[in-house]
Amino acid sequence: MRDFLPADKARRERVLSVIRERYRAHGFDEIETPVVEEYERLHAGIGGDNEKLSFAILRRGLDADAIRAAADDPAALSDLGLRYDLTVPLARFYASNRGQLPGVFRSVQIAPVWRAERPQKGRYRQFVQCDIDIIGDASGRAEAELLVASLDAVDALGLEGATVRINDRRLLDWMLGHLGFTTEERPQVLITIDKLDKIGPEGVAAELRERGVTATAVAAFEEFLRRPQTLEYHPYGERQIRKALPEGVPDELIAHLTGIGEAVAAARPVVAEHVEIPLVFDPFLVRGMGYYTGTIFELAHPSVGYSLGGGGRYDGMIGRFLKQDVPAVGFSLGFERLVDLVSADPDTEAQAIVLVHDADVPVGELVAHKAELVARGARVRLEQRTKNLKALLERAAADGYTHFASVRAGSDELEVKTLG
Amino acid sequence: MRDFLPADKARRERVLSVIRERYRAHGFDEIETPVVEEYERLHAGIGGDNEKLSFAILRRGLDADAIRAAADDPAALSDLGLRYDLTVPLARFYASNRGQLPGVFRSVQIAPVWRAERPQKGRYRQFVQCDIDIIGDASGRAEAELLVASLDAVDALGLEGATVRINDRRLLDWMLGHLGFTTEERPQVLITIDKLDKIGPEGVAAELRERGVTATAVAAFEEFLRRPQTLEYHPYGERQIRKALPEGVPDELIAHLTGIGEAVAAARPVVAEHVEIPLVFDPFLVRGMGYYTGTIFELAHPSVGYSLGGGGRYDGMIGRFLKQDVPAVGFSLGFERLVDLVSADPDTEAQAIVLVHDADVPVGELVAHKAELVARGARVRLEQRTKNLKALLERAAADGYTHFASVRAGSDELEVKTLG
Repeated sequence: MRDFLPADKARRERVLSVIRERYRAHGFDEIETPVVEEYERLHAGIGGDNEKLSFAILRRGLDADAIRAAADDPAALSDLGLRYDLTVPLARFYASNRGQLPGVFRSVQIAPVWRAERPQKGRYRQFVQCDIDIIGDASGRAEAELLVASLDAVDALGLEGATVRINDRRLLDWMLGHLGFTTEERPQVLITIDKLDKIGPEGVAAELRERGVTATAVAAFEEFLRRPQTLEYHPYGERQIRKALPEGVPDELIAHLTGIGEAVAAARPVVAEHVEIPLVFDPFLVRGMGYYTGTIFELAHPSVGYSLGGGGRYDGMIGRFLKQDVPAVGFSLGFERLVDLVSADPDTEAQAIVLVHDADVPVGELVAHKAELVARGARVRLEQRTKNLKALLERAAADGYTHFASVRAGSDELEVKTLG
Repeated sequence: MRDFLPADKARRERVLSVIRERYRAHGFDEIETPVVEEYERLHAGIGGDNEKLSFAILRRGLDADAIRAAADDPAALSDLGLRYDLTVPLARFYASNRGQLPGVFRSVQIAPVWRAERPQKGRYRQFVQCDIDIIGDASGRAEAELLVASLDAVDALGLEGATVRINDRRLLDWMLGHLGFTTEERPQVLITIDKLDKIGPEGVAAELRERGVTATAVAAFEEFLRRPQTLEYHPYGERQIRKALPEGVPDELIAHLTGIGEAVAAARPVVAEHVEIPLVFDPFLVRGMGYYTGTIFELAHPSVGYSLGGGGRYDGMIGRFLKQDVPAVGFSLGFERLVDLVSADPDTEAQAIVLVHDADVPVGELVAHKAELVARGARVRLEQRTKNLKALLERAAADGYTHFASVRAGSDELEVKTLG
């Protein structure tokens, strides 16, 4: 876990407020849930592998007997835990508060989560997630709104040129069935396909053979991967989507995807003066979580090799606490990665002024000078003059100060000069 | 702990951004520390009674034997805990990072803390604290900067007219010595005096007699409380401060307080066009925490009977982790109380538009209309037309939407109308 010093904190807040403002403009409403959720809800099977990384809170008031008894049932030591994602809390929030929410609820959450990861470079045990979700809309309108808003937010951070890789779990399922994999085999086949980027077509075929799934299906898959058009870059459109897939894909699955593409294209030129559709069809995009039921997507940017976010449709999950089906689709922006990518320049306010004063300036005079500059819209820091004035001003410049002025006892007028 | 629905969350973020912006203007730098601190640091005696209310995190990887062994040493179950205030983390932060901070460090922290309070109205187990601190300045300049910035922040929230009750722990100590209480008695005498508002002068005298402290001192104190000028309202100034106290107060203690008052007065007219000194001398202000060493203050507002914040000088504490003295003075704004006091009006953006559309409008058209309005600076929510259009628009108005427009398939121009 990390301390954030002033420059880092200011950068994080800047990114946060841009994202918040953009999603708000697109009709998303920000909510906040407690950091702590009930232990049982955090271990209900929705969180996948993250459940194992969850920090548990020690139940209060346990006596020696209760602790001894818990040796055989450690779960009895905790009634609460720190959340490891924002999806489990959202499902609980929606079930608790749906009567007070609009029929189609568009939420934003920007908040920390905790996972007991082994410390390593770029992995933190506390980090911020930024999730938007649309609950209650089963149509492709929801996907289009999510993607348009998210691309707008990324543009607003100065990271123009992002694209979204898109696929549909139903399309993957159809393709695997078409190739001859049984329904039971398909989840493990997906786990292998998810590694295509890393281990290549031969690696995937080898791992599938190792898994002992239907041999004829593996052979058909190898054959399919060998087609020249299968692994090429697929710009977006019905023709390109069909070309990348085996023949015979059901029309309605194609239509769902192309509908989203057309909608995003219709919105984008106006928002950011892009004309190309910022979508790429990727027939082998899988995304790990088990709960996805339809479209899935990942955000890519030409400046980096890793994804900057992703999400998908998960119609089965939100309804679990309500015992009914509620359509939902979500997108999670990689907040920590975005913070690293945006410019490190300190804020460039019109005037951020260091008031360097002698030790003998009466407090009242000093504070009055400061207040006058603050009232004029400046950001002001007092610094008592030291022998090494240069070092003092350099440190202030590093903290984003752009101007300075000297204050001596009884000086009425300040001369504000540019720093550096 | 609470869920925050969109309207509440928006209000909290509005208050937060006003406070953040004002403190920043006054030269305070925002920092952030992890929510979790080491268990031992949270139980080092700095946190007073709050230490007992701390949530502990269950140590990971405990086996059955370790749990059984912990029956006699429950502290072994935890290595981490949730912070219960922002002062302990600040002391740790300063010790870890001081090499990268300015000589006089002005910090702002606005962040949640957790206490295992018994649930009751107005008390929450997770709540936000808003602390500013100045570390490294022993002069009254620090107090003046804290108070001017805090009063400016409260003004900016629309709560003009706040005043600060001020006292000095050294003055209290001098007064109690002057009246004849021994050094050993003074801490418990302070605990009783702190109740003056609630139990009155007779109650205080009775409780002191019950405590069995020096009887002649109690009698002298009763006599002092009976003076007509002792319990009256004290506008600020040397004459008034002297009048409220026994004779013979050391000049330097008076000078420290009047210096702060003059500085605050010098700054205030410019910042907010107030001319009165927004300070009141309260010779019986105590403030509970044991770590205060000098000036103490509490923020009051005519609209409410409770305090909206407070703080004081605590020169001994920050240095504990550094094994050296470091002067420090802090002020904590009552964030949750301020949120309750500021206007509940939803944001009044120029245009927040509900686009009510028929079910058959193609997604592309709909999303393009939305994008066009967003690009013009509006905040936009899509709503599919329902039979009860009135209810739908009322719900949107409650969420802060000010305009609406109808979208039918193929309609090129939108007519945006005022809502309600």
